[in-house]
Amino acid sequence: MVGVMGGGEELAPEIYRLAYHLGELIAKEGWVLLNGGRPAGVMEASAKGARENGGLTVGVLPGKDGGAASDYIDVVIATGMGDGRNYINALSSDIVVALPGKAGTVSEIALALKNRKKVILLGADVGTTFDFYRDEGLLANASTPEEAIQIIKRLHVPGKTHATPGSKKLYGKYIIK
Amino acid sequence: MVGVMGGGEELAPEIYRLAYHLGELIAKEGWVLLNGGRPAGVMEASAKGARENGGLTVGVLPGKDGGAASDYIDVVIATGMGDGRNYINALSSDIVVALPGKAGTVSEIALALKNRKKVILLGADVGTTFDFYRDEGLLANASTPEEAIQIIKRLHVPGKTHATPGSKKLYGKYIIK
Amino acid sequence: MVGVMGGGEELAPEIYRLAYHLGELIAKEGWVLLNGGRPAGVMEASAKGARENGGLTVGVLPGKDGGAASDYIDVVIATGMGDGRNYINALSSDIVVALPGKAGTVSEIALALKNRKKVILLGADVGTTFDFYRDEGLLANASTPEEAIQIIKRLHVPGKTHATPGSKKLYGKYIIK
Amino acid sequence: MVGVMGGGEELAPEIYRLAYHLGELIAKEGWVLLNGGRPAGVMEASAKGARENGGLTVGVLPGKDGGAASDYIDVVIATGMGDGRNYINALSSDIVVALPGKAGTVSEIALALKNRKKVILLGADVGTTFDFYRDEGLLANASTPEEAIQIIKRLHVPGKTHATPGSKKLYGKYIIK
Repeated sequence: MVGVMGGGEELAPEIYRLAYHLGELIAKEGWVLLNGGRPAGVMEASAKGARENGGLTVGVLPGKDGGAASDYIDVVIATGMGDGRNYINALSSDIVVALPGKAGTVSEIALALKNRKKVILLGADVGTTFDFYRDEGLLANASTPEEAIQIIKRLHVPGKTHATPGSKKLYGKYIIK
Repeated sequence: MVGVMGGGEELAPEIYRLAYHLGELIAKEGWVLLNGGRPAGVMEASAKGARENGGLTVGVLPGKDGGAASDYIDVVIATGMGDGRNYINALSSDIVVALPGKAGTVSEIALALKNRKKVILLGADVGTTFDFYRDEGLLANASTPEEAIQIIKRLHVPGKTHATPGSKKLYGKYIIK
Repeated sequence: MVGVMGGGEELAPEIYRLAYHLGELIAKEGWVLLNGGRPAGVMEASAKGARENGGLTVGVLPGKDGGAASDYIDVVIATGMGDGRNYINALSSDIVVALPGKAGTVSEIALALKNRKKVILLGADVGTTFDFYRDEGLLANASTPEEAIQIIKRLHVPGKTHATPGSKKLYGKYIIK
Repeated sequence: MVGVMGGGEELAPEIYRLAYHLGELIAKEGWVLLNGGRPAGVMEASAKGARENGGLTVGVLPGKDGGAASDYIDVVIATGMGDGRNYINALSSDIVVALPGKAGTVSEIALALKNRKKVILLGADVGTTFDFYRDEGLLANASTPEEAIQIIKRLHVPGKTHATPGSKKLYGKYIIK
């Protein structure tokens, strides 16, 4: 399960394409995409990219109403916990890819790192804030979605966690049209 | 998305079979099964029933470690919020089926009803505690898994909420072997 | 810290007096009162009873805005987690007194019992639902606020938990006008 | 209610003194101090500073057990929600002062800013990460605890929110020995 984090505001076209393309590549690897589930920003774009390329998408919403999710989300988790759900996003992701965003995105990066999840920055500019974690091997930079996928493959040795085999199993279980 | 709630302790064989059979029927309808995700009790049995019959299973765990989920869970949400996740289970379910359990199960029934989710009691004995909600049409009893499925079909008019079409869409999107 | 749970709707006059009087007695013991913090129902009445009698009141709100708390709450915790805060209420109380309420109240009783907190029913009618916990010594009935206070004193041997000494220390530290 | 955030690890002596002195000044203003409640790092030091100078301290714990709180915490909120409680800390603070820390502290700064709470950096180095919020007037720097107190007084016009009058009322209600 790859968590994709990033801004919920209107996106510049190049960021939209970046998020869409990342979702596409995640789907093509057979991985499950998890994000914040709202029909906006990086969430909508990455879910669309994954879904239109046969992927499974999971959205963890801040609100109580599952109906508020993006149409590109398959599995809707309605938490009713506002930004408290950012912690759930961090914990539920096997690895996080962070696109540009504001404080919400930074909080997800921070919560992921605190809980020893690896984070790949794809356009997210966090300055020197998290350099401590870079030294620990938890933080990496990617300049393209393709590079992010390569880093995930390198960092995430199959069989070491529940996630990669889980995704594979899921991929094997369903045949995507 | 059908939430299946019930005890996390060791089950009497007939309750195990009841939970397994309910999971099986949910899968055969093409619905997604959501539960508490742990490898125990009603959670394990219902997830096994769904998975062994081609269904998709979602587990919302109390702990931080997704690796603690039942092997029969496809999509693992690790909340790190303890029983706070019971609220998420209630909100994320389009409808809840409650099997026998103790206070954890009762809390999920209560949180579902408070948030206007329909609850079907399948062996869960809650006495007269929730009769207020029975009068409002939110609480029903089923004596068999088959009857629970019939009630879900009757209560949940397709198209009225995001859930049934979502599940259908999911069902349509993947071809189950 | 004594948790007072009960309905958030308009109260019958006798329930209002019951909640107010319970708050009054808790304050006079020098204990801290914790409730759901909203300006309604049992929350408002019990906080008013405590505050008008020199007690300290803590309100754990479902919403994000601390300004929505009852005027009778001293320490406002804004959770932004909806009914997810019911779990926090249960965990933060050293003991819970439950007045009449609907599903929200039942969920708090259930979450308290599941987490091995003692619960005293003061007018809350839960039928036979929690009899399992009664047998374990976690659930008791009181017919008056005075009786509830007596049960708390009997169950809660000073020094055994952090709470009673904490409250005492607080009581000793401030001189109430 | 002033939220004090910062690292939970062992502190350099000068950071310990900074946190203690900030707690002391908050107490002397008659404000309530809120932090993460654990007996470690900035939490312990700031709570000690406030308590030894007559202040009221509120600790919002990650764990389920209120007994794990620092001895210098008066009102213990046990959330059982892990770092999910960082969101509660942000929402419950009228204003946040951030001392040096790692990802946990950054997540609290981020969640506070996202929810339009003012944050004063007292030694916390966040690089340029939150400059967006600086331009919006939500983020300020202080070089000493005294300066932080001055900024709080300037930013927080009495009567504009529930918090300052609430604290005043509390201060007025109890006479500190």
